[in-house]
Amino acid sequence: MTKAFASMNADVVGGDVSDRARRARNAAQILAVTSSATRNSGIKAVAEQMLAERQNILAANKVDLQNAADLVHKGQLEEPLLKRLDLVSGKFDAAVEMVYSVLDLKDPLEVTLSARELDEGLNLYRVTVPIGVLGVIFESRPDALVQIASLCLKSGNAVLLKGGREAAQTNIALAECIARATQRVTGIPDGWITLMETREDVSVLLDQEESIDLIVPRGGNEFVQHIMDNTNIPVMGHADGICHIYVDKDADLDKAVRITVDAKTQYVAVCNAVETLIVHSDIAEDFFGCVIPQLIDRGVIIRGDGRTVKLVRPKGVVMPATDSDWSTEYLDLILAVKVVDSLEEAIKHINRFSSHHTDSIITEDTKAATVFLRSVDSSSVCHNVSTRFADGYRYGLGAEVGISTGRLHSRGPVGLEGLTSYKYILEGCGQIVEDYDGDLGRKFTHTPLDADWKPNKD
Amino acid sequence: MTKAFASMNADVVGGDVSDRARRARNAAQILAVTSSATRNSGIKAVAEQMLAERQNILAANKVDLQNAADLVHKGQLEEPLLKRLDLVSGKFDAAVEMVYSVLDLKDPLEVTLSARELDEGLNLYRVTVPIGVLGVIFESRPDALVQIASLCLKSGNAVLLKGGREAAQTNIALAECIARATQRVTGIPDGWITLMETREDVSVLLDQEESIDLIVPRGGNEFVQHIMDNTNIPVMGHADGICHIYVDKDADLDKAVRITVDAKTQYVAVCNAVETLIVHSDIAEDFFGCVIPQLIDRGVIIRGDGRTVKLVRPKGVVMPATDSDWSTEYLDLILAVKVVDSLEEAIKHINRFSSHHTDSIITEDTKAATVFLRSVDSSSVCHNVSTRFADGYRYGLGAEVGISTGRLHSRGPVGLEGLTSYKYILEGCGQIVEDYDGDLGRKFTHTPLDADWKPNKD
Repeated sequence: MTKAFASMNADVVGGDVSDRARRARNAAQILAVTSSATRNSGIKAVAEQMLAERQNILAANKVDLQNAADLVHKGQLEEPLLKRLDLVSGKFDAAVEMVYSVLDLKDPLEVTLSARELDEGLNLYRVTVPIGVLGVIFESRPDALVQIASLCLKSGNAVLLKGGREAAQTNIALAECIARATQRVTGIPDGWITLMETREDVSVLLDQEESIDLIVPRGGNEFVQHIMDNTNIPVMGHADGICHIYVDKDADLDKAVRITVDAKTQYVAVCNAVETLIVHSDIAEDFFGCVIPQLIDRGVIIRGDGRTVKLVRPKGVVMPATDSDWSTEYLDLILAVKVVDSLEEAIKHINRFSSHHTDSIITEDTKAATVFLRSVDSSSVCHNVSTRFADGYRYGLGAEVGISTGRLHSRGPVGLEGLTSYKYILEGCGQIVEDYDGDLGRKFTHTPLDADWKPNKD
Repeated sequence: MTKAFASMNADVVGGDVSDRARRARNAAQILAVTSSATRNSGIKAVAEQMLAERQNILAANKVDLQNAADLVHKGQLEEPLLKRLDLVSGKFDAAVEMVYSVLDLKDPLEVTLSARELDEGLNLYRVTVPIGVLGVIFESRPDALVQIASLCLKSGNAVLLKGGREAAQTNIALAECIARATQRVTGIPDGWITLMETREDVSVLLDQEESIDLIVPRGGNEFVQHIMDNTNIPVMGHADGICHIYVDKDADLDKAVRITVDAKTQYVAVCNAVETLIVHSDIAEDFFGCVIPQLIDRGVIIRGDGRTVKLVRPKGVVMPATDSDWSTEYLDLILAVKVVDSLEEAIKHINRFSSHHTDSIITEDTKAATVFLRSVDSSSVCHNVSTRFADGYRYGLGAEVGISTGRLHSRGPVGLEGLTSYKYILEGCGQIVEDYDGDLGRKFTHTPLDADWKPNKD
């Protein structure tokens, strides 16, 4: 696969996973103190190396595509996967472009988050640092590997990657290309990027608590839940994407229709597509009259509660919903619909069934919108827009590692900032705690400082 | 215990833990949308109710103290615990004072962390929200209960508490007092605070993933490790406190002596006390000549590596250290001492053995200090100050829930801010993703907004 570059051993695949996790930990400690310029040189080298190895990578991708096509032919793989796997048609250039866009992002490290004088000559700074070592398990899109690796390098994190097995050859070619690129850059340690290949590797990975700080699983519900249940390492991600749209009694029905159709049909197989539509009873009949024909036109199957079934004409286009519909992520042209009598009832339903990913209210009543935005306990809450906006690119985070529905560390789309932690830096001139003890001791001033932490660069 | 208040049932102890966790989850959803004024009224009511129930609480504390004294007498409990348990001597007033100081802190909720225009009329805000439901398991100091409850109420979090069993009666009196106080405040939901009493309760607590967002264990190493090993709920805390002081070749020896003595002896039984002293070989003999006599004067036992044993006069005052000394948290008048030949060697030792709590360099060479502050991978890194400064009060966080040595969410001393998460709020006027699709679609502006999220309060 990598003949042209075989002489440069990238050492990025194969070998014992726990050894490689330890190497990644060592690399992370070096990477954490690299300058912004060094990391940016690394990212630039990645983009250039990708262009240099273009033919090689695309050849590897062709092998994967051929294998996958055979499996599709045998009925062992679903056809849409081929499109996701395919790097050839423009996606390769987009991936390189994405690397350059990460290069342009602001350095997320050594940012002073807060500064405080504790006493004269005793200053405390809170300064961003990398998280350390990430384990990222991602789906079949090989361009995801490039995105994750670039974000990790920019934020000074080492990374163990595991991609979908359908993209095995492409992933090897890409990971080796990235490792080769950064090997040429002084200051970037070997071992910061590693590719795992088997499910067994993932099992070992999940046990490397000593070496890995965070696991980011991307993929379906069951897969993410499996990861969460089988590791003591913190996991950042989302299992489900059960997103809601609530059309309030004071909704602009035109907006509501456009938004509902967009959120359901623009791209069905994504976590921020809407799965349940909740409609206020005051406007339900009118709204259904506008929205249902458009949805049906686009092939959407409607599963409604009793009131929806009664209200929608003609009879029979709505299938009766069962209880399980409210907690199902369809990822398909299916929409659950429910009629409520109040904003409060809608919020209650959403807080019970939402996967805390993204929920949107459509209303011209800004007071109702405020109540919704405040009360709905989800990582993204929206007013008068499609739930489909909730991703790192559209939010302007540059790129995203994933979307978190957890409540700790990062929530919602996670970009560079979500890949950082912080440390406290306390600079003094000989202060001891004894001096501040008791009623007669020195008093802390605790004054906010308008200054960033300044490393000495003599 | 609570005769005078028996008619007001606080319902804060007893009952099924999973039921109470669910009640806390419901309470948290209400608490999350209370105004700053409502939460502050609650905190004020807590302080007032504590003063009103003073005799009752102190009577309960006397019962605990008597029981504990009996156990000390029987040799079943260590004497220092009595002092920690005792609320009577001034500590009650200090606890009330602490409640008022939390009242004075800035509201940590609905703070706009960032704001961005995605397109004209499409604005994205990142706004702080409470974490939700906390489970806090704390040691024998009953004043900790008051501190944790106040911080939780201020930050809109519901809390399940479990204190040391030696403080059982005091904790019941305090928790009931706090619940009674907030019952009188309109808008604060019942069930936001709950006290657990048994170890079995804690076991059940650790299983309530659906209802509890974060466990904060405070206590010894083994206890915290036990909690971490027995729950799928995220845990924030620290197991060990193995803190280091590195005395560089360019250290001011006077400072170094003062700081070392302070960090080791000012209060030995705390996590930010120093456990290992690392000394550069260039100044080791001089420094030992100054510091060792002072440490020995204060009863400190020195365990040194081979070079330390050789350098310290008179012979025999240093016990030889074994490998396990470098990873032992003594919490006692014992200090491990090691001689190194370079800053890099010191950093390497610290990054290997530190519990990532707090490590300090003593040097007049600011360049060496910068290297140390950058490279040492701990939640607090210090220059020319005692490690003992690393706590929430001294850092000016107001009060602390605990100190985190984890790298996710919060690191170091955790105050109010560490008890918040955030949500993204996206406000539009009918935008759909379809409009931004493809080369001819609308382009995002992604312009920073200098504005806070403004709820509509009509």
